[in-house]
Amino acid sequence: MLLAVAAAATIQPFDMATAQQSHYPRIGMAGYTFVKFDIDSTIEMMKKADVKYLCIKDFHLPLNSTDEQMAAFREKLRAHGIIPYAVGPIYMNSEQEVDRAFDYAARFGVDMIVAVPKYELLDYVDSKVIERGIRIAIHLHGPDGMPYPNATDAWNRIKDLDPRMGICLDIGHTLRDGHDPVLDMDRYRSRIFDIHIKDVTGNTSAGRAIEMGRGKIDIPAFVRMLKETGYSGVCSLEYEKDMDNPMLGIVESIGYFKGVADSVFK
Amino acid sequence: MLLAVAAAATIQPFDMATAQQSHYPRIGMAGYTFVKFDIDSTIEMMKKADVKYLCIKDFHLPLNSTDEQMAAFREKLRAHGIIPYAVGPIYMNSEQEVDRAFDYAARFGVDMIVAVPKYELLDYVDSKVIERGIRIAIHLHGPDGMPYPNATDAWNRIKDLDPRMGICLDIGHTLRDGHDPVLDMDRYRSRIFDIHIKDVTGNTSAGRAIEMGRGKIDIPAFVRMLKETGYSGVCSLEYEKDMDNPMLGIVESIGYFKGVADSVFK
Repeated sequence: MLLAVAAAATIQPFDMATAQQSHYPRIGMAGYTFVKFDIDSTIEMMKKADVKYLCIKDFHLPLNSTDEQMAAFREKLRAHGIIPYAVGPIYMNSEQEVDRAFDYAARFGVDMIVAVPKYELLDYVDSKVIERGIRIAIHLHGPDGMPYPNATDAWNRIKDLDPRMGICLDIGHTLRDGHDPVLDMDRYRSRIFDIHIKDVTGNTSAGRAIEMGRGKIDIPAFVRMLKETGYSGVCSLEYEKDMDNPMLGIVESIGYFKGVADSVFK
Repeated sequence: MLLAVAAAATIQPFDMATAQQSHYPRIGMAGYTFVKFDIDSTIEMMKKADVKYLCIKDFHLPLNSTDEQMAAFREKLRAHGIIPYAVGPIYMNSEQEVDRAFDYAARFGVDMIVAVPKYELLDYVDSKVIERGIRIAIHLHGPDGMPYPNATDAWNRIKDLDPRMGICLDIGHTLRDGHDPVLDMDRYRSRIFDIHIKDVTGNTSAGRAIEMGRGKIDIPAFVRMLKETGYSGVCSLEYEKDMDNPMLGIVESIGYFKGVADSVFK
């Protein structure tokens, strides 16, 4: 246990060398997909889906976890071959919540926080990025009244901040907000650090989650743009349909995305 | 009921006009995938997987079914949007079994039988194709000691027979027999009337069934060849792993194939 705690002290980007050799996207899961399941069930479901990368949500690893709890959690993932590549989305509504999130990420040992900071806190978040060397990927939330509806909104607010202030491009919310995920990937490529892959039934707020390939997002065009931009982050499925029993939708979606990626990259 | 029976008397190729307008492959299921399930469960599973075309196996519709039983079966499929595009594989070990299979297909109202006739019966089968106007797609069976291990073997036996004597290219058994499904699709395109899609773990008889995209078949290359050859038949998943509980593997495989097809054809 002590060894694992010590290892967490050094923040290392996960297999960045591999990612830079080949841009075939690493495929992951956004933790929110498993909001109805504990971490043991989550791990089992990821193994069935043959997916290795997980963005950790606080319902699986609470923000106030002790170092020992974090070490045990990390060891459990490691034992099953699951790689935690980031934490979040984490909402940040005060400087104290910003501090706590950076401390949490640093103690857990990841180099990126998927985050939804209040607009007024962006300068403070920027100062923490510079201080802690941990990147921020601001999560987009579409037309439902949340901050950062689309990538243009986030870009305009971060473009003059530290280059480690970036975006988690949610392609479903992007389309639901009436924007083109392919175009936004192209435009904002330098700041897109994480991607939530999914599909939706339409390009308005009425668009709802559906298995990838059955909806309105042009996934092949999006993956071709990933190749063109040399995106080296993770593409994490955030599956928000049938959340009580999501496995069929998860594996169909992962299968679809792998089929597209194999076609585009091979 | 009488109306449905009457309708079956005219054999119509299913939506051939549509198929000729666009070569995006029609996706189906080989009935053998559901050997452990009755037709009601099979229909439910196909609806979950969003797959419409089914090749009918005799454990779902026995060869000695009455016209009324066939009409009821056809009506059940129709009510759920499932399209029976062929029957088989049907083994044919005598002239009587050949006659029975052609009679079964004609009474049910499909224009193709996926078949495994004894080598000695090929001339007799050929005469029935000419007499009844029903096509034959000979199923390939790989290195396990069955007739027709690969497409070259089938081709050499049928190439001088009626052009409606063709092949059901099983890409898994083809690879397990040490042949390249892409090359065989290219070579024998004029006689490939049906395809069993799947994936396998290796190119020998030890290769076993696995979810599409996880095995050794280059599915993107195969689908590019489908496009090049203008294949207008059905690509039917024959999933032979976890046959007691195949749904996860089925939807992952269908998702994968759709992802590839969307990438290649869109």
